[in-house]
Amino acid sequence: MTVLITGGAGFIAATLVQRLLDRGEVVLAIDNLCRGSVANLPSFGKRSQLLFAKADLADLAAFRSAIAAHRHLGRIDAVWHLAANSDIPAGIADASLDLRDTFMTTYNTLRVMEENGIRKLLFASSSAIYGDLGETALSEETGPLFPISNYGAMKLASEAAITAAAEKFLDRALIFRFPNVVGVPATHGVILDFVRRLRCQPDRLDVFGNGTQRKSYLHVSDLVDAVLLVASHASRKVDVFNIGPVDDGITVRQIATETVAAAAPGATVSFGSGNKGWIGDVPSFRYSVAKLKELGWQPRLDSVGAVRRAIAEIMRQEGGAAGDCRE
Amino acid sequence: MTVLITGGAGFIAATLVQRLLDRGEVVLAIDNLCRGSVANLPSFGKRSQLLFAKADLADLAAFRSAIAAHRHLGRIDAVWHLAANSDIPAGIADASLDLRDTFMTTYNTLRVMEENGIRKLLFASSSAIYGDLGETALSEETGPLFPISNYGAMKLASEAAITAAAEKFLDRALIFRFPNVVGVPATHGVILDFVRRLRCQPDRLDVFGNGTQRKSYLHVSDLVDAVLLVASHASRKVDVFNIGPVDDGITVRQIATETVAAAAPGATVSFGSGNKGWIGDVPSFRYSVAKLKELGWQPRLDSVGAVRRAIAEIMRQEGGAAGDCRE
Repeated sequence: MTVLITGGAGFIAATLVQRLLDRGEVVLAIDNLCRGSVANLPSFGKRSQLLFAKADLADLAAFRSAIAAHRHLGRIDAVWHLAANSDIPAGIADASLDLRDTFMTTYNTLRVMEENGIRKLLFASSSAIYGDLGETALSEETGPLFPISNYGAMKLASEAAITAAAEKFLDRALIFRFPNVVGVPATHGVILDFVRRLRCQPDRLDVFGNGTQRKSYLHVSDLVDAVLLVASHASRKVDVFNIGPVDDGITVRQIATETVAAAAPGATVSFGSGNKGWIGDVPSFRYSVAKLKELGWQPRLDSVGAVRRAIAEIMRQEGGAAGDCRE
Repeated sequence: MTVLITGGAGFIAATLVQRLLDRGEVVLAIDNLCRGSVANLPSFGKRSQLLFAKADLADLAAFRSAIAAHRHLGRIDAVWHLAANSDIPAGIADASLDLRDTFMTTYNTLRVMEENGIRKLLFASSSAIYGDLGETALSEETGPLFPISNYGAMKLASEAAITAAAEKFLDRALIFRFPNVVGVPATHGVILDFVRRLRCQPDRLDVFGNGTQRKSYLHVSDLVDAVLLVASHASRKVDVFNIGPVDDGITVRQIATETVAAAAPGATVSFGSGNKGWIGDVPSFRYSVAKLKELGWQPRLDSVGAVRRAIAEIMRQEGGAAGDCRE
């Protein structure tokens, strides 16, 4: 089995690549290294089954060249498409960011798959495609889908391009709608932000919004378990699965409290106003993962457990002592 | 009231523009004239409230120039965004067609609106966003949305980009999911195809597929009534409405029979196999327009009536006598 992973030097790929190598697959990871890093691939250079190519997947010619340069690998059996802009606020300020990095990477992935006869796609979509539906428990059948960020919009656009491609040339398209995922190597997200700010200013933590935003968090190790389970069990040609914990999530207030307790005990936490952290931030959502549970999946960590473990992991990742400020 | 209509020389714009002019609006129509024609705007050159600019809206610089050239019109109050690729099979053969003409036209419309402070958008989406959900009655809340054509995919992508833009800068975004719309000036579609082929070969009509595909058809005059009603009554900032007849549609077999009866009585109709006309063709769907009916709307023509009227109109449009073949 030879697989291509787009966004292959990113946060989620770091865990997924290791698991695929462990089960004997040959992995070609491609990444533009804008947000990812080869350091996220600890096996690179040590295991011959792992190959890496730097290429901007939004540039179709560069993408094609990267594939052509690895023609010696023979047939690619499947693509895990993880490449995307992961900075949601930046994508709201500048819509071209998600157009290019979240959508055109998908569009080009489909073109390259069609050209190379690759017929199996596993896609990292997002709960952001649902938008702000208030207290509705979000199942895979929920509509209408009114994403409120360009990230969510371009993930939904990607899903749509994939289902149309399945009608034409794919044999299998699995769409995973990820929740907030935490763990290391952390490149973005609220926990990393809190840890870094507390290192810099250990006596206070200012939180955007009033802290009541409630979201589901999943640890990356549980997430990778889930997608591998679905990949081996799903039977439909095109299918979609919400991936998330089975609890109702954790508030930003709780995340702030947990981070302060671990990283800077005694710091004062102050909150802003409003229940959104930024334009495009979904204040709260309830996520149904009943379809995933029917396959027998159960996460090892709930939202609180995932956040606690991630705080500890991110503190180790960041190192340094209180008072260390990074620019 | 000054409005911009994209795809302003196309089939649906021809009827909509006339209605907007009749109620005193100033209309700036922009079109790339690839599929549309200025001849579709009978008032052009006769009424000073109608202005036309040729521009490819997938080219952001050209779009901006066309707007800048009409700065003397003052503030644009709303945009009717109708521009799209209307040739669904062509978009399946070449995905770049719908990327450019169905999606990038939307993306660029949103950029131009943001730059010019235009905060009201009315968008012609499509029932194609639902994909092939079999016998499910499709309401606006139906999911999952798995479009099976690039046209449907890029209409869904457009909806998503619009709802994200509404979160950032729009005051009002109304999404209309159009059914099959018939009438004149016809530029594409099954009736025009049948009429032209019967003119060329009056003794036989070969139909793709087995003729059992059942679809809802709405006459363009009813469609324009519906969108104007929604535009004046809808109250939410972002909303979506299925637009369609209240019946269960008409089969391709019935359309063939009606067209033969009107255009070439006695012609033999022969059918292919399978219930799809082409890849990406949705064999049948049931469309719920309950939400639209709650606003008091009732079409004057059902699917059969709309098809009959369109056959007569298209025969007049095409003119000529039996045996006239067009290349």
